[in-house]
Amino acid sequence: MAFDAIETPFGKSDRIIGGAATYIAWSASNFTKPIYQISVVGGDFPQSELDALTARGVRLEGVQIKKDEKSFFWSGKYHLDMNSRDTLDTQLNVLADFTPVVPDSYQDAEFLMLGNLLPSVQLSVIEQIKRRPKLVVMDTMNFWMDTAMDDLKKVLQKVDVLLVNDSEARQLSGQHSLVKAAKEIIKMGPKFLIIKKGEHGALLFNGNEVFFAPALPLEDVFDPTGAGDTFAGGFIGHIAKTRDISFQNMKTAIIVGSAMASYCVEKFGTGRLVEITKQDIDERIRQFVELVNFDITLT
Amino acid sequence: MAFDAIETPFGKSDRIIGGAATYIAWSASNFTKPIYQISVVGGDFPQSELDALTARGVRLEGVQIKKDEKSFFWSGKYHLDMNSRDTLDTQLNVLADFTPVVPDSYQDAEFLMLGNLLPSVQLSVIEQIKRRPKLVVMDTMNFWMDTAMDDLKKVLQKVDVLLVNDSEARQLSGQHSLVKAAKEIIKMGPKFLIIKKGEHGALLFNGNEVFFAPALPLEDVFDPTGAGDTFAGGFIGHIAKTRDISFQNMKTAIIVGSAMASYCVEKFGTGRLVEITKQDIDERIRQFVELVNFDITLT
Repeated sequence: MAFDAIETPFGKSDRIIGGAATYIAWSASNFTKPIYQISVVGGDFPQSELDALTARGVRLEGVQIKKDEKSFFWSGKYHLDMNSRDTLDTQLNVLADFTPVVPDSYQDAEFLMLGNLLPSVQLSVIEQIKRRPKLVVMDTMNFWMDTAMDDLKKVLQKVDVLLVNDSEARQLSGQHSLVKAAKEIIKMGPKFLIIKKGEHGALLFNGNEVFFAPALPLEDVFDPTGAGDTFAGGFIGHIAKTRDISFQNMKTAIIVGSAMASYCVEKFGTGRLVEITKQDIDERIRQFVELVNFDITLT
Repeated sequence: MAFDAIETPFGKSDRIIGGAATYIAWSASNFTKPIYQISVVGGDFPQSELDALTARGVRLEGVQIKKDEKSFFWSGKYHLDMNSRDTLDTQLNVLADFTPVVPDSYQDAEFLMLGNLLPSVQLSVIEQIKRRPKLVVMDTMNFWMDTAMDDLKKVLQKVDVLLVNDSEARQLSGQHSLVKAAKEIIKMGPKFLIIKKGEHGALLFNGNEVFFAPALPLEDVFDPTGAGDTFAGGFIGHIAKTRDISFQNMKTAIIVGSAMASYCVEKFGTGRLVEITKQDIDERIRQFVELVNFDITLT
């Protein structure tokens, strides 16, 4: 839970609410509640934002508020193609020495979504939960592969599903072919691997099975910030709602995550996520069904 | 119909048989016959290759054989990612002054596939066919956008389906968003637009409808040469077999084309295409069905 300031070819935001856990919570809370949030913010984080999350069924006992410190801040500028960006500023602030504490009231959690953060912080959360969740999903990024690979590999051994993008899958595995990359990564621990390819959709691997979910072709991507987190939130939200961790249901969860991500990019920050309804989500899921539906009769 | 010499990270071919019309014919002949081929070759083009096509039901009255000249030759080297390549050598030879002649025996053609070539040559073929085909499909490339845009735009007004890749769609339309690009291109003439995205699949646009077909995730792409032509051959082959030019059937045709292209890249040149059976093709189409199949119940 953090602040971002974002520049895209379409405009420039002020300091707005961001952070992986924020996007995940807004997205997942469409499908399941309560959500047990774990994070850290400074005294500058608006109470109104915390209240809005509470109203969505997001529990905040696990969110540390460090009154005399500042929230994490990131500022970046997207290139014209929206696929790459430059970081303009990163201020760790409260994240510099974040030690997550899992409250007792969270111990009955059945599904654990580890947002993108220091692998040692992710590991600490896993270790504090006494009864292993039915499903542990982990998001990460290239930065941790560059700076904390040993810790990252430890976490990989404890998770069921890993979420990375295509270049991260290549970096982590040392393989260019995503099929080969998936085989290598699955050897590192997670039984399921989701490779996100942005506007090119996402792949789900499990053993020799593979599923492909497209991204919805959009006229404009206004701001891609948080799309991956929103995808993760939709994914874990659907799994938690259905309590079904089969490969077949994960396919559906990926479509749900993709639908949520397609809304996220329509406005700056969480602007679109906070206003969409169940009807909007159903409508978009229908578009995904239409997008990939075809008939074939083998004669 | 031509010769290629290809280098990939996996190896290097001698001078082998290539050319858009060759790939299209090998691919389409799995679904329909006769195929009325129009092309030009030199005296160096092996009779055995022509005989092999004849045996597949490919008619060659429209293939000019210029005994004292040489066939078109292209040589290229693919980069490690297999998405880009450098041209090492291009020898136009018989293509330098190719004037296609549509034989009378071809006049009952119902479906016309214009392989990638000089737009004026494509236009000449359209104009020589007296009864307009049920469906005219056109492939083209960025080279003609750079060098013959006026002619290209004339052909666009006479075709039903255009096939281009994503960067070509952006170049032709001046739009980065593929959804916007499709809208612009459809204004130029074709009612249907297929945007090929290589390993990221293909999109079909028609009015406000859109369909997405994935590419099969492959362990290795051995040689991408001819994959687009092979896709086109599978597409038009399925349409000709079913004689159904609806949007719904075009979706299926794209899956068939994608299945064919996924075989093409497994060996150098036409090496894999000449050996696959109907059983192989059906098996791969089943893999595509599996790849995108998901269940969702909106409650």
